Amino acid sequence: MKIGFIGLGVMGAPMASHLANAGHSIVTTLNRSPLPACLEQHHLEIAATPAEVAQRCDVVILMLPDTPDVERVVLGQKGLIEGLGERSLVIDMSSISPIATRTIASAVEAKGASYLDAPVSGGEVGAKAATLTIMVGGGQAAYQRALPLFEFMGKNITLVGEENGAGQMCKVANQIIVALNIEAVGEALVLASKAGCNPAAVRKTLMGGFAASRILEVHGERMIKRTFDAGFRIRLHQKDLGLALETARSLGVSLPNTATCQELFNSSKARGDGELDHSALVRSLEVMSAHEIGSQA
Amino acid sequence: MKIGFIGLGVMGAPMASHLANAGHSIVTTLNRSPLPACLEQHHLEIAATPAEVAQRCDVVILMLPDTPDVERVVLGQKGLIEGLGERSLVIDMSSISPIATRTIASAVEAKGASYLDAPVSGGEVGAKAATLTIMVGGGQAAYQRALPLFEFMGKNITLVGEENGAGQMCKVANQIIVALNIEAVGEALVLASKAGCNPAAVRKTLMGGFAASRILEVHGERMIKRTFDAGFRIRLHQKDLGLALETARSLGVSLPNTATCQELFNSSKARGDGELDHSALVRSLEVMSAHEIGSQA
Repeated sequence: MKIGFIGLGVMGAPMASHLANAGHSIVTTLNRSPLPACLEQHHLEIAATPAEVAQRCDVVILMLPDTPDVERVVLGQKGLIEGLGERSLVIDMSSISPIATRTIASAVEAKGASYLDAPVSGGEVGAKAATLTIMVGGGQAAYQRALPLFEFMGKNITLVGEENGAGQMCKVANQIIVALNIEAVGEALVLASKAGCNPAAVRKTLMGGFAASRILEVHGERMIKRTFDAGFRIRLHQKDLGLALETARSLGVSLPNTATCQELFNSSKARGDGELDHSALVRSLEVMSAHEIGSQA
Repeated sequence: MKIGFIGLGVMGAPMASHLANAGHSIVTTLNRSPLPACLEQHHLEIAATPAEVAQRCDVVILMLPDTPDVERVVLGQKGLIEGLGERSLVIDMSSISPIATRTIASAVEAKGASYLDAPVSGGEVGAKAATLTIMVGGGQAAYQRALPLFEFMGKNITLVGEENGAGQMCKVANQIIVALNIEAVGEALVLASKAGCNPAAVRKTLMGGFAASRILEVHGERMIKRTFDAGFRIRLHQKDLGLALETARSLGVSLPNTATCQELFNSSKARGDGELDHSALVRSLEVMSAHEIGSQA
């Protein structure tokens, strides 16, 4: 099948390569960067504009950095929207605003085409290994049509809601829990360390009970070993909590600890930590308490 | 060996029964309640006062409800302190204030005796199955002396710090992370549910990635299924966060999200939810956002 794929970056390139390896031919727009290594062996068809991609392919996948990029590619001049027909299916796998997603999806559906939002988690490692978690929002029929393609790119694939934006919402929920769990581990370890506990022994002990989490395991260790090279950058998680708070305000939901956590990310960025791994959020807590984990009280 | 064991309640009775099953004889003070079933088959020696327990036994274990109970039994009139000698070892397995623990331990050590704080997690189930997590603070020599006894009662046993209070501190860290992870799951599920997602599908999907935790697994399911029978009661978790915030203030540590979480527990209690499982914290978030998980938006 001919598949449009716009956004061949760190995530998009390996994802598209899995589709190409499965025998699909990929149509894309011109990229600024040279073609990623994983796509070199494949013939890519280059279209001049997103509209042309939509004209040539029934299915178009997007994997772009942020909300304005998706808006521009779909709704902008010579955007996808100008080339869509009734058989078209647009699948946005970027992580963007759930609210903006509803607007974009409405515009696509007004052309008689179908729309799925299907953001992923699992990062570059998951994209390369085709083990991404894929959280999908949209209609059952469109989901069934897309599922065989998702299965080339991910493992844990769920239709989390039949409204457009539900997939983006699930991704936002993921980012809330991850950020708040990092903050929780940070509060606990700063306090325990200042009280004279060995933070490594505390972490190991707590992994045996209800405090156990992927974050205590992985990010707790990062906090103790002071390995803050990204990983997932504070700057990007700050963007994601921005989506969470914007969505919450728009829907009428109160997120007290997400709001505090975003303030801590703001402080991290202000102190020059924006490019560090999100586990470095603990440094904002350490500054507040004048105590660094590992430096025994 | 003769072991003093004061506090034969829901937790203490099965813990003492494991020691008795292993051939130790238990000395206790008179209990208000009739002897628990698990201890009926054993001969218990009854002493008139804690001081007398300390005179008869080199090792005395405490498993009491709260800080004032431990203070009374150790430091009160005819308390343990009056019967301690240089060979005595006091092991407090109750969950109490890390700060008060330091004072109590100092008084015990001033008599030439040794002191360990060794609170547990795992609840009644863990106490019965002898699978408790035991978090120990105190000196290496005392720890090595107590370890064979701990091994009859628990599985995951760690000396988390060589200062008195380190074990209590580790327990407090545990309660911080558990409360904040419950709150995090609550914020994420209320938002996702109000946005029209299926909360059960969201939970299942997020368990596949970095948001995975024991709390998302167990308490997330309780929130979705609305099964709020305790479990661990909000009233008790509120007490534990009180210890966390009191300790933090005393040590000079800032715990912003623990403070917010305690306010949510305060609200839970105000609305009559104090006896529900701590997963019912989500109901405070639901009240704030006028939306109940499961009632699709």
